[in-house]
Amino acid sequence: MTVNRHWRLASYPEGMPSEANWTFTEGPIPEPGPTAILARAIYLDVAPYMRGRMSPQKNYAPGVKLGDVMIGGGIGEVIESNAAQYKPGDFVVTDHGFGWQQYAVLQPSAVRKVERELAPLPYWLDALGLNGMTAYFALLDAGRMRPGETVVVSAAAGSVGQIAGQIARLGGARAVGITSSATKAAWCREAGYADVVEYRNEPDLRAAVANTCVAGVDVFIDNTGGPIHDAVMQNLATYARVVIVGSISLAAKFGQPDIGLRFQRQTLIARATIRGFLVSDYQHQQAEARRRMAEWCRAGLMKSRFDIVKGIENMPQAFLRLLTSQNLGKQLVQVADEPA
Amino acid sequence: MTVNRHWRLASYPEGMPSEANWTFTEGPIPEPGPTAILARAIYLDVAPYMRGRMSPQKNYAPGVKLGDVMIGGGIGEVIESNAAQYKPGDFVVTDHGFGWQQYAVLQPSAVRKVERELAPLPYWLDALGLNGMTAYFALLDAGRMRPGETVVVSAAAGSVGQIAGQIARLGGARAVGITSSATKAAWCREAGYADVVEYRNEPDLRAAVANTCVAGVDVFIDNTGGPIHDAVMQNLATYARVVIVGSISLAAKFGQPDIGLRFQRQTLIARATIRGFLVSDYQHQQAEARRRMAEWCRAGLMKSRFDIVKGIENMPQAFLRLLTSQNLGKQLVQVADEPA
Repeated sequence: MTVNRHWRLASYPEGMPSEANWTFTEGPIPEPGPTAILARAIYLDVAPYMRGRMSPQKNYAPGVKLGDVMIGGGIGEVIESNAAQYKPGDFVVTDHGFGWQQYAVLQPSAVRKVERELAPLPYWLDALGLNGMTAYFALLDAGRMRPGETVVVSAAAGSVGQIAGQIARLGGARAVGITSSATKAAWCREAGYADVVEYRNEPDLRAAVANTCVAGVDVFIDNTGGPIHDAVMQNLATYARVVIVGSISLAAKFGQPDIGLRFQRQTLIARATIRGFLVSDYQHQQAEARRRMAEWCRAGLMKSRFDIVKGIENMPQAFLRLLTSQNLGKQLVQVADEPA
Repeated sequence: MTVNRHWRLASYPEGMPSEANWTFTEGPIPEPGPTAILARAIYLDVAPYMRGRMSPQKNYAPGVKLGDVMIGGGIGEVIESNAAQYKPGDFVVTDHGFGWQQYAVLQPSAVRKVERELAPLPYWLDALGLNGMTAYFALLDAGRMRPGETVVVSAAAGSVGQIAGQIARLGGARAVGITSSATKAAWCREAGYADVVEYRNEPDLRAAVANTCVAGVDVFIDNTGGPIHDAVMQNLATYARVVIVGSISLAAKFGQPDIGLRFQRQTLIARATIRGFLVSDYQHQQAEARRRMAEWCRAGLMKSRFDIVKGIENMPQAFLRLLTSQNLGKQLVQVADEPA
């Protein structure tokens, strides 16, 4: 291979993105500067936050400019290195800095070394990446989860959800997952959930949450917003903590005002706390959390399921699978075979 | 006077209460038991929380039963005492335990002694009562207000609002009040507010808040809910703290679902914290807060404005003044002249 292939943002979608919002381009493989490395993508990430970057609207981080390579994390094999810390054949991971492309020039300060003996490669974009850190800090810091509590997680079979269920179980809490299908529900039960609500099969979602959380919901990790949020908010226990991690249910109407039930009265009565959550606020604590997660992975206490699409040409398709809830487990794109 | 007169709850209102929801009754003056006191009301409280007690719906405290004397705080003069701590002529205050009546039998554990040398009688149902404690803990504990921050308070000329403005100024924050009229706005400026938004005169309330809070809102003490809430939520600074203290704007549609704009995305982007607040959760810290408030009162740093209706027969009218935002300052009912 002598060319680099990349997906560039071509237009801002309204509501749900489509493949037409990107263009698939080719260019030369870049040269690493005097301190940088050149990495070849093995796995690339797709994640809900990317929807927010496909917009000129105010967000917690700047959007991708039209014509630029789409933002994204990745695991790569070092091909060339001008950095003392890395040599060809090493594996590196970056949360956002790879981009949707086959080759990337990376600064050593922007990557972490992958230690394959701790966990297989895909885990480094999962339990040991943004998803794991999100589940860990959303539950244990923002959510202040305590043993014996009832924890509800929406999008429970998804990338953050499958890890949150396992951390909740490890921490002595009772986790209830909310997910779309029986297949996903079965996986949730394997992934630590004591009970699962299949929301598409529940005519009265509020009652279904009440039935699985008879003493109320102590911690709610909200990955979706929308009607699932509404059902849980009507079942809060006193002093409940609601952590707003994502709003994927709003993806189809991204940027439009979200109109619906409001829960100020319930929030007051429960003296609940609702917190907006961004894992980037925990940068300085992630090394320690990652050590714990790696220990759980090595001990077999933390298992992820992956939904892997092959081929750089399928990046948009993989991302759209995720936005439309078709994936089971962490969605990744495998761009090249794993070296032995 | 040989009879006691009381207001009893006759029916549960739908939406805004009316005088027909109570009946004005007479009965014998009760006898204090072996450890109790008999007090004669001087001032009785009316407060928004009472609306929540006029309902069989789930709330943070049980509602008043039909036929029972309406709940409420009061300041009374001790007429008879079987309690060692009190003698006739003393003044006592209770946050909720007096009821809408002229005479009440009170247990000494349920009242506090009024020290008139610290502050005039009405202050004991205000800065040194629930309103003062609410403003103090909502700002300093739940809101974690810091010097230099921008604090927005809705219902700023009201009982909690007028105290919150003064505490914010004492704490080195810049307080912006939201209130209904020019008269109230003028009082807000006296009461510590650096800037005031008169919401009835603002065609674009969101822009008006933005113009007075150019770096965003760090702390929002929300006494109202509704459209004022919406305007502030669209102006949150990063790491903003929103304290849900009351929802008086919903009084007219009490018990109905509150439908409107939702701010999950803004909450996430700002990493804001929204907390439901009840002053009763701070019971064990109130003695210390009350000492500080009393010190500020004595030093002339904490001044309240009172809106005093006279006569036990006007209790419902005073309460309805409050619910319809006609009062200026803390609304009380004076049931008897203050003894010299």
